[in-house]
Amino acid sequence: MPSTTNYDALTRTWTRMHHLGHLQAIANWDHAANMPPKGNEARAAALAEVATLLHGLRTAPELGQRIERAAQEDLGPEQRANLREMERQWRAATALPAALIERQQLATSRCEHAWRGQRPANDWRGFLANFREVLAVGRETAQRLADQSGLGPYEALMDRYEPGARCAQVDAVFGEVRQWLPGLIERVRERQARETVVEPRGPYAPAAQRALCLQMMKRLGFDFDAGRLDVSAHPFCGGVPEDVRITTRFREDDFVTSLMGTVHETGHARYEQNLPRELLGQPVAEPRSMAIHESQSLSFEMQLGGHPGFVRGMAPLLVQAFGDQPAFEPANLCRLLTRVKPGCIRVDADEVTYPAHILLRYEIERPLIEGAIEPEDVPALWDAKMMELLGVDTRGNYRDGPLQDVHWPEALFGYFPCYTLGAMYAAQWFAAMRREMPGLDARIDRGDLAPVFDWLRARIWTQASRWDTGELVRRASGETLNPAHFRAHLEARYLG
Amino acid sequence: MPSTTNYDALTRTWTRMHHLGHLQAIANWDHAANMPPKGNEARAAALAEVATLLHGLRTAPELGQRIERAAQEDLGPEQRANLREMERQWRAATALPAALIERQQLATSRCEHAWRGQRPANDWRGFLANFREVLAVGRETAQRLADQSGLGPYEALMDRYEPGARCAQVDAVFGEVRQWLPGLIERVRERQARETVVEPRGPYAPAAQRALCLQMMKRLGFDFDAGRLDVSAHPFCGGVPEDVRITTRFREDDFVTSLMGTVHETGHARYEQNLPRELLGQPVAEPRSMAIHESQSLSFEMQLGGHPGFVRGMAPLLVQAFGDQPAFEPANLCRLLTRVKPGCIRVDADEVTYPAHILLRYEIERPLIEGAIEPEDVPALWDAKMMELLGVDTRGNYRDGPLQDVHWPEALFGYFPCYTLGAMYAAQWFAAMRREMPGLDARIDRGDLAPVFDWLRARIWTQASRWDTGELVRRASGETLNPAHFRAHLEARYLG
Repeated sequence: MPSTTNYDALTRTWTRMHHLGHLQAIANWDHAANMPPKGNEARAAALAEVATLLHGLRTAPELGQRIERAAQEDLGPEQRANLREMERQWRAATALPAALIERQQLATSRCEHAWRGQRPANDWRGFLANFREVLAVGRETAQRLADQSGLGPYEALMDRYEPGARCAQVDAVFGEVRQWLPGLIERVRERQARETVVEPRGPYAPAAQRALCLQMMKRLGFDFDAGRLDVSAHPFCGGVPEDVRITTRFREDDFVTSLMGTVHETGHARYEQNLPRELLGQPVAEPRSMAIHESQSLSFEMQLGGHPGFVRGMAPLLVQAFGDQPAFEPANLCRLLTRVKPGCIRVDADEVTYPAHILLRYEIERPLIEGAIEPEDVPALWDAKMMELLGVDTRGNYRDGPLQDVHWPEALFGYFPCYTLGAMYAAQWFAAMRREMPGLDARIDRGDLAPVFDWLRARIWTQASRWDTGELVRRASGETLNPAHFRAHLEARYLG
Repeated sequence: MPSTTNYDALTRTWTRMHHLGHLQAIANWDHAANMPPKGNEARAAALAEVATLLHGLRTAPELGQRIERAAQEDLGPEQRANLREMERQWRAATALPAALIERQQLATSRCEHAWRGQRPANDWRGFLANFREVLAVGRETAQRLADQSGLGPYEALMDRYEPGARCAQVDAVFGEVRQWLPGLIERVRERQARETVVEPRGPYAPAAQRALCLQMMKRLGFDFDAGRLDVSAHPFCGGVPEDVRITTRFREDDFVTSLMGTVHETGHARYEQNLPRELLGQPVAEPRSMAIHESQSLSFEMQLGGHPGFVRGMAPLLVQAFGDQPAFEPANLCRLLTRVKPGCIRVDADEVTYPAHILLRYEIERPLIEGAIEPEDVPALWDAKMMELLGVDTRGNYRDGPLQDVHWPEALFGYFPCYTLGAMYAAQWFAAMRREMPGLDARIDRGDLAPVFDWLRARIWTQASRWDTGELVRRASGETLNPAHFRAHLEARYLG
């Protein structure tokens, strides 16, 4: 009788971690969506307790042995894939000494806390004082991960969010985008300068916005028996696959942010809600990577959200929510939702200028980690690249420059590329869908989104971490990452 | 240098349990207030995981040794009190073998699940089939706890909810109530039959009810920076002392249930919000007992909630919430909120008839646990006692008879007495307040509730588990439990 003793023990450990992770996820969601201020200290202590427990489980010395022995057991291909992911997670968890993790927690918590006040105060010098230690920890982390994995230091950090992504590939892809993006932005801007766009008029009652968001989620196939929509200061998709909690926020003077933000988070949510059920709790059933996750939210927000047929279907919902007005005429609404305008702020950027913000960050944080530049060099580089890529002057404006993102105070180096890789994957999925289903756009025009969801469910959602990213992408779309689809998408939508 | 090594290690263990209990409490609250149906299975698994962890911490073999050794250490009086409570909790946790706990979980989960359908179907026979095993487990639990503690079997169960309560005392107190309660009910009914009460007219919009409840909570001193009000099917007070989550539910045709339910839960909440902060997480800082907790909710709902001065202050809030109507005239409102009407259902009972429901349950569940009667005997006893105590005919109506409460399917034997002990303590607190503060009622009439809150804070809330229940009650009110105050309260309010 073939034995799978070690493998089975490993699955039990991961199931336990899944259960503790559940409590962590709900407590984190509650922290953002519900918690009153005086609950903060007790919540932090409770979350630290479960983090310690999880760290203990993840780094238990016997896990390494078990993984080694399980590799000798009689496993099927899905179990092998699960073991591969277990090993990856175990390596990541054990790569860093506890003292370094603690040092990082201290440094990032101090830096992030101070940054909340320094950003509005435009206080770059104050920020630098804390950020030096964050960077020092980031560099040491990168070096240790690099030594263990044989990757380059920045690459090793990126690998934590985007397993398998390599700098050579990102360099090639981003380098190509850099060639055509500024010209494309210019041509789109010229063209849009000749268009007339009617601005919608508020105010938009939060209750009406909420009802609209719920309708949109329903249209996008969100399973309300397995998730909720709530409000938080910074929208996110949280909770657990069995109970996905997405959030948004409502501003009386603007409905587009909450609506399109909800469309975005619903893309993340459907990935989670459609992960393979029978393996839930095991690494093989987890989402593949940050870029693949983002490719789902951007498939919803950008590929569908800016699609003329989809926008036409959205118009009557707006009329129902806020009453009729000229801005809600479908063609106008489409122009409104696809307007391109270079600006300082990444999270406010449109689909066309967004990659410029990512290129800039990649071109700064990589040499920063690799020691080629120092924190003092950042503002000048930032200003030069913003001018080069977007024609935007950011001199002296640290608040809307290098102080705008939480990623650096949090030591999330290597994360930024995922956003634009996600946008490229999304374009690649839709290119593949159109090849396979020639009538796709006509069906979207008729409000029939089932073919999109069916394709994503079969090719991405239910595949979870069964394959490494390269193989997943090939199986889904017939080729590896190909940025030509992203360019073609932008040209078709904005210049077609 | 005096050593407190073992004591300190114990406090660290309890702090860890406090942190895990935090996640458990928030996940339980979320389960009731937010969770969509498909999240249920994953939530149950996550909660079972943390329950296992907590059970492991609570029953660790070294705890017993540490407690023994800590008793030899150089402890102050507060530390001694904490150690006393640790020992009590440890004894309770280790008294039962794991197999029995598991058997109880199986039996109660099966019985409770089936009961949800059997109650509406009036299916007493179906219920019996599962309840026999629940009772068998209850009896074995009682016997084991009795063997360990030297208490009687039912007493040993009651001691888990109401430490220190003894059957002799409950017998004496409930026996006395039994003498005068039926006569009192009759006299109140006769008197109220001559009164005219104008019924309020709905509907009452849930949003207006919610706003009213929030205003009432504010008036009652609820700290919204350390808690929230939400909606759940069965109202409760949950969360953690640092972040108290109370719930209510709204019916369009009735505002009294949500309003007075909120007043009740706010009483529980203020106890939690005012437990001693510096010791939070330690047993000495936990609420004293279920009856003492209930004495807080009933101090708010009954002692204050039916006070003519308090009701007068409530009237303008009702007018503001729902518009003016004759029923909101203060004297009428007072009659409305103090109407006495014997009925089948405990949770719908008024302040005067409520104890009859508890006497009945005590008189049935105690012999049931002690083996003097069997489950088959319950309906006839129920019918006879309902007729005797309340003049209500329940024959054949199991749904509104012995099937009405979740306590028995859940094996919560020994809990019921706490409700009426709580009502008696509440009356005793107000009697003590009136002795100490002769102008109290005039201040309540003027809407000044501060003296009530100050008294409860000093005597009950901040005392937590510093003293055993008897000592707490003596220190607070100058005497042990004295049911005469409850009788005097009812006579003054309903016949005065």
